[in-house]
Amino acid sequence: MAQFNSYQPNPELDLMFERVIDVPRELVWAAWTTPEQLKKWFTPAPWKTVDCEIDLRPGGIFSTMMRSPEGQEFPNLGCYLEVIKNERLVWTNALEPNFRPSKHPVETPGHECAEFSFTAVISLEPREKGTKYTALVMHSNKEDRAKHEKMGFQEGWGTALDQLVAMIKKI
Amino acid sequence: MAQFNSYQPNPELDLMFERVIDVPRELVWAAWTTPEQLKKWFTPAPWKTVDCEIDLRPGGIFSTMMRSPEGQEFPNLGCYLEVIKNERLVWTNALEPNFRPSKHPVETPGHECAEFSFTAVISLEPREKGTKYTALVMHSNKEDRAKHEKMGFQEGWGTALDQLVAMIKKI
Repeated sequence: MAQFNSYQPNPELDLMFERVIDVPRELVWAAWTTPEQLKKWFTPAPWKTVDCEIDLRPGGIFSTMMRSPEGQEFPNLGCYLEVIKNERLVWTNALEPNFRPSKHPVETPGHECAEFSFTAVISLEPREKGTKYTALVMHSNKEDRAKHEKMGFQEGWGTALDQLVAMIKKI
Repeated sequence: MAQFNSYQPNPELDLMFERVIDVPRELVWAAWTTPEQLKKWFTPAPWKTVDCEIDLRPGGIFSTMMRSPEGQEFPNLGCYLEVIKNERLVWTNALEPNFRPSKHPVETPGHECAEFSFTAVISLEPREKGTKYTALVMHSNKEDRAKHEKMGFQEGWGTALDQLVAMIKKI
């Protein structure tokens, strides 16, 4: 199950976000895998995550519903591919639950997010004073990677992680 | 890892092939997971499987190259999702190796096979005199299911299984 230990990111197709944070990885894992926690940090404000379903096993559902400040809702449906507690979480929107291929592109007017497929790998490594947090996002082609980068990948993941850390410190 | 034990096929989106065969499941598993064996039975004659690469782990490559009687070659690239020795093998062409989303539809003129995404689940159950062999193929929509059925799903999987059993009996 250790396939990503030796994976070398492909700079033409992947996006990567890395940061060392001062909270233990067990709490970061809980923030990613507990719907009630995830809803509090997953979407950069003033957007909200108003619904979340998690079935934490390969083939299990990972779905979220985001709501814009104007009140429009955008569903995201995917499934987990690899679940290694406190270490690595892999999911994709290219498959629905039970590994069924997704209908793509998803027709959600005005919501660029849903227009491309991706696979995300969250890796957590212990550090003396916290956790090294890495998000690797794989795309099928250069155009999708460029679109995702232009949408504000670095800023978006950074803001969400700020919110995650703030939530943990408040618990 | 036992998600398909409780999965109820969806008759609107899935195709299913079932047969009891008189060879032990360990040999059927080997036929599915050893490139040199798979090349001998995987494609109904007079088509041939001329190349096969297998990395038997979730995220690992499963690729085949088929050759038509006229000599035209058609690549199929996918990745494994679940590998339970002698019991269940799951793979999809919606993801490439390392779970990267695939480019779909694949542009292979004249080759209907590659034009839709699917996930396949091969299940092997021991029977007194052999193996209950089940292939479940999941599609993202009714049109893809209908197309696959019309291409000769039942006949194709039946002929390939005849070739698999014949190969095992010759070994």
